[in-house]
Amino acid sequence: MNKLLIIARDSDQYRQQIEMAALPFLEIVQSASEEVELVLGEPTGIRALLPELPALKWVQATWAGVEPLLDPSLRRDYILTNARGVFGGLMSEFVFGYLLMHERRILQRLDAQKQGKWDSTRTGTLRGKTIGLLGVGSIGAHLAGSAKHFGMTVHGYTRSSETCSQVDRYYHGAELGAFATGLDVLVNVLPNTSQTRKIVDARLLAALPPQAVFINVGRGTALDEPALVSALETDRLALAVLDVFEQEPLPARHPFWHTKNLFITSHTAAPSFPQDIVKVFIENYRLFSSGKALNYQVDFERGY
Amino acid sequence: MNKLLIIARDSDQYRQQIEMAALPFLEIVQSASEEVELVLGEPTGIRALLPELPALKWVQATWAGVEPLLDPSLRRDYILTNARGVFGGLMSEFVFGYLLMHERRILQRLDAQKQGKWDSTRTGTLRGKTIGLLGVGSIGAHLAGSAKHFGMTVHGYTRSSETCSQVDRYYHGAELGAFATGLDVLVNVLPNTSQTRKIVDARLLAALPPQAVFINVGRGTALDEPALVSALETDRLALAVLDVFEQEPLPARHPFWHTKNLFITSHTAAPSFPQDIVKVFIENYRLFSSGKALNYQVDFERGY
Repeated sequence: MNKLLIIARDSDQYRQQIEMAALPFLEIVQSASEEVELVLGEPTGIRALLPELPALKWVQATWAGVEPLLDPSLRRDYILTNARGVFGGLMSEFVFGYLLMHERRILQRLDAQKQGKWDSTRTGTLRGKTIGLLGVGSIGAHLAGSAKHFGMTVHGYTRSSETCSQVDRYYHGAELGAFATGLDVLVNVLPNTSQTRKIVDARLLAALPPQAVFINVGRGTALDEPALVSALETDRLALAVLDVFEQEPLPARHPFWHTKNLFITSHTAAPSFPQDIVKVFIENYRLFSSGKALNYQVDFERGY
Repeated sequence: MNKLLIIARDSDQYRQQIEMAALPFLEIVQSASEEVELVLGEPTGIRALLPELPALKWVQATWAGVEPLLDPSLRRDYILTNARGVFGGLMSEFVFGYLLMHERRILQRLDAQKQGKWDSTRTGTLRGKTIGLLGVGSIGAHLAGSAKHFGMTVHGYTRSSETCSQVDRYYHGAELGAFATGLDVLVNVLPNTSQTRKIVDARLLAALPPQAVFINVGRGTALDEPALVSALETDRLALAVLDVFEQEPLPARHPFWHTKNLFITSHTAAPSFPQDIVKVFIENYRLFSSGKALNYQVDFERGY
C-alpha cells in the first residue's frame, strides 16, 4: 500500500474526494510516520514535517508556489510536483475583474449613485488596448486568451519561449524597456527566481505610459515596492492591483495600505479549490503507480 | 449626389470618419432641407426633424434602440436601420465586469483594505455557474460566448429561435419559470415590445434562487420596478445591476437610488463609438447605392 498524508486546510474535502476515486493501493493516513511515502498539501505545512517523513517519495503541492520547500538547507530526496493548469481561469477572472472595474468606472459610478447623480460619462473599453504579460506559462497563456476574447493586443516577455499563439508579439532579454513602452496593462505572472527579483523596478515603471495599470499575480519579490508607491503617488501610473507581496500578510505599517490608486487583494487571486487539485493528484498518482514521469515536476535548482 | 445629414453628439467625428472613406456620390450637409435623403444619428434628434425632411429615404440610427421613431403617429415612409453587431463586446465587458466584481468580492476587499485588514476570505468563481439570457440576438450571443469563456453553463429564453450554438439549453413560451429556476445570473437583453413589457415581474424574480444576480441591459420597460425593490430589500435576490429604466434619467425620488444591493449605471453599458457605427453606415451605404436590401432594417410594427 502507498500511504498518503494530507496536510491542507481543506483536508476533509481532499480525503473525501480522493476516497471517492478509489485509487488502487492507496491508503490515506492521519499523521506523519516512517511509512508515509506520499504527501498532498500546502508547502508551509509540509516543510515543518519533512524531518518526520524518512520514506518520503513524492510531494504533490496544492499551490503553484513551492518556495517554502526550495530552501537549500532542506532535503531534496523526493519528487516535488506543484499545481499547474488549474489556476488560469481563476487568474483571468481576477485580472479581468479589476481591469473591467477600472475601464467601466464601476467605483466612480457607485459614488455618483450615492450622490443621487445620473452619471452618463462614457466608459472606456478594453477593446483595442494592449496588455503585456511578464511571463507566459500556462497562466500567462490563459490570460492571453481572455485578452483576445476582449479584443486586446497581447505582448509577452519571456526568457526565450514563444509557444503561445495568442501572443501577438514577443520580447526577450534586454527588450524589457521596449516591451513596457506603449502598454495599457502590465501583468506580472513570473515565478520567484533569482532572475525575476525586482524585475518591476523604477525603470520599468517609468517606461509604462501614465494611464497604465499594473497587476501583480506572480510573486511579491518581482516588484520594487517603494518604486511602485512613488509611481502611483505622483500619477506616473494610473492603478495597481497587488495580490502578492514581499512579506505576507502585508505588515500593518506598510505604505501600500494607504497608497493612492492601489488595490490589495491578500493573495486570493487564484485559490486552490480541492476539486481542481484532486484532479491533478489523481492523474499524477496514476503516473506514479505505473513508474512514469509525473506532471508538473519542480526543478529544485531552477525554482519552478 | 446623396445628401447626408448627421445628427449626433459626436457629429464632427462621424463627419471626419465618413469623409475619410470617400464614399461615391455622397455629400454631407449641415442642416435639414428638402433635398436630404439620408440621415445618420440619434433617434431622439431625428424624430424632431422628421417633418423637415420630405425627401427622406433612409435613416441609419447610431443606437440599437429606436423607440423614439416607432411612435405610430410618426411617418414610416423611409427605411430605418439600427446599429447592431457592434455592442456585443461592450455589453460583455459591462456584464462580466459587474459579475466579476461580485464573485471576486472587489468592494468587500476594498473595505477590508481601508481598515488595514489582510482579507484572505476565499473568493467565488464564475466557473460552473449558470447564466440565463432573456433574449438571444447578437448581443445575447456575444454574452453567451463570454460566459463560455469563463466556464459557465448558458441557458437561453427566446420566442422560438435556437440559433446560438453556445447556448446549452433553450426555453420558450410558458417555460419562463423553469428557465429562471436554478440560474445564478439572469441577464435581460430583450428589446422593448408589447410581449416583453414587465416580463421580469414578481413571479419571475421569485423563481430565481436568493443568491442570484439580475442584470438589465435590454430595456427598462421589461422590469416591474417595485417587484425588484421588494426582492432586493428582503434578500430574495443578491444583487441587481440596472443600466436601463422605465424613465431615463432616473427620477430624483425613485426608490432605486437607495435600494440595497442595487447598482445604477445610467444607460452607459454599451456606448455608440463613432468608429463602430461608421463601419455599419459604410457597409449599408454600399448596399443602398447598389439598390440592395440594407443590414439591420427595423420592422416598424414588430419594434426591432
